[in-house]
Amino acid sequence: MTALTINGSTRLYGIVGDPIAQVKTPELMNAFFQQNGINAVCVPLQVTAATFESSLRGIMALANVAGLVITVPHKVRACALADTLSAQAQRVGAVNVLRRDAQGGWLGDMFDGAGLVAGLQAEGFTLRGQRVKQLGAGGSGAAVAFALLEAGVAALTLCDPNGDAAQALVDRINTHYPNGPARVSTSPADLDGIDLLINCSPVGMQPGEGLPAPFTAFSPALQVVDIIMHPPETPLIARARVRRAAGRLTAGR
Amino acid sequence: MTALTINGSTRLYGIVGDPIAQVKTPELMNAFFQQNGINAVCVPLQVTAATFESSLRGIMALANVAGLVITVPHKVRACALADTLSAQAQRVGAVNVLRRDAQGGWLGDMFDGAGLVAGLQAEGFTLRGQRVKQLGAGGSGAAVAFALLEAGVAALTLCDPNGDAAQALVDRINTHYPNGPARVSTSPADLDGIDLLINCSPVGMQPGEGLPAPFTAFSPALQVVDIIMHPPETPLIARARVRRAAGRLTAGR
Repeated sequence: MTALTINGSTRLYGIVGDPIAQVKTPELMNAFFQQNGINAVCVPLQVTAATFESSLRGIMALANVAGLVITVPHKVRACALADTLSAQAQRVGAVNVLRRDAQGGWLGDMFDGAGLVAGLQAEGFTLRGQRVKQLGAGGSGAAVAFALLEAGVAALTLCDPNGDAAQALVDRINTHYPNGPARVSTSPADLDGIDLLINCSPVGMQPGEGLPAPFTAFSPALQVVDIIMHPPETPLIARARVRRAAGRLTAGR
Repeated sequence: MTALTINGSTRLYGIVGDPIAQVKTPELMNAFFQQNGINAVCVPLQVTAATFESSLRGIMALANVAGLVITVPHKVRACALADTLSAQAQRVGAVNVLRRDAQGGWLGDMFDGAGLVAGLQAEGFTLRGQRVKQLGAGGSGAAVAFALLEAGVAALTLCDPNGDAAQALVDRINTHYPNGPARVSTSPADLDGIDLLINCSPVGMQPGEGLPAPFTAFSPALQVVDIIMHPPETPLIARARVRRAAGRLTAGR
């Protein structure tokens, strides 16, 4: 691996969010660029909500910017800045990447869910035919839900403290998939009759937070996933690990 | 020296220009950051004239941008984006840096001339008391002229194909320094009665260009400076070197 060098011809990628200090995208992308001899660099871009559209439009006007990764809290608002949206971005209603296309326009896409599914499959998790309970029906939850359905889960039940948000996501899914492929519904935050529990809520990120729901017993066969990246082990995963039912992965939220 | 690494906490500096591929600022600044253990990175930002103000304002709104270096063709327009201008930037009417101050405002400053003078002095050039002929009275020329005066040259004569530009810079200098410190005037592009010739015009950058004026004989004692960075040896410097009168430095244009 050669050292990362930046010169006047270097093309730019940015990871856009606020806060930004926690992101791992620059390390991951820059290692890829180095390993593949690509003269490009990814840098953190701390864009506040107050200046989101004007800052993004200014950055997108830079002639040497090739692409942007979008993270919290901007994934929904970034949709409006794309000239074209992928089918997945349209379904989810959010983007996690904006890429300049060959004509100079900007394509928005959403890989959060596909990335999670690919990671879970690489780690040996079973998805096809599984009954899944998903906690959290926000932006990340929407991306994950659509990806789980495309991965062939048999049933998906959504639970969110904001019951309207959970029902809205169910409706959104049913609009896009009126004939299946899976049963989709809202449900309480329990562990009855499920094979996989996935937390897409933010509960567990802040120090001192406990479980996203008052779970007591995890069956040894239950697969447990938390998409939170920090802390490395959330209270949910710690509890599940004790019960010998734990696995975890992250979806880059 | 540790390797350059970029993470979510890395602070950003940009070099703003169009074209941008030729700039050396990222290599220079990033080597400095590495050597001093500073978690910051400088990247090229190709900002076109058509989107200058909106792009710059968008970039300046990023919470993790600490400073910008401004180069061709934006040094004059960038003045209007600063909240405060240094005395030197006000005199020259252009900035080559914008820096975020402790209160979050943006300070514009102009170091092109001071950088050139420091470089010349480090290379053993004599400035104090010298009679100087300067070719070129544009933005870079203005920065250099003020810096030469502050370095104590005895006389400065300005020559530009645009005679109005040369006279305007003389007037500007006389406004700021009504009582000296040096004689300042316009003059033809000859070598009569001077100790130092400095080219601040762009003539010599493009392949096939010749001398910025039809000079024939260089005296061995004449000091010759060209602020053009590319090519490494301009026709002017090549001619002067043959005449055993050459030195050269660059001002980062």
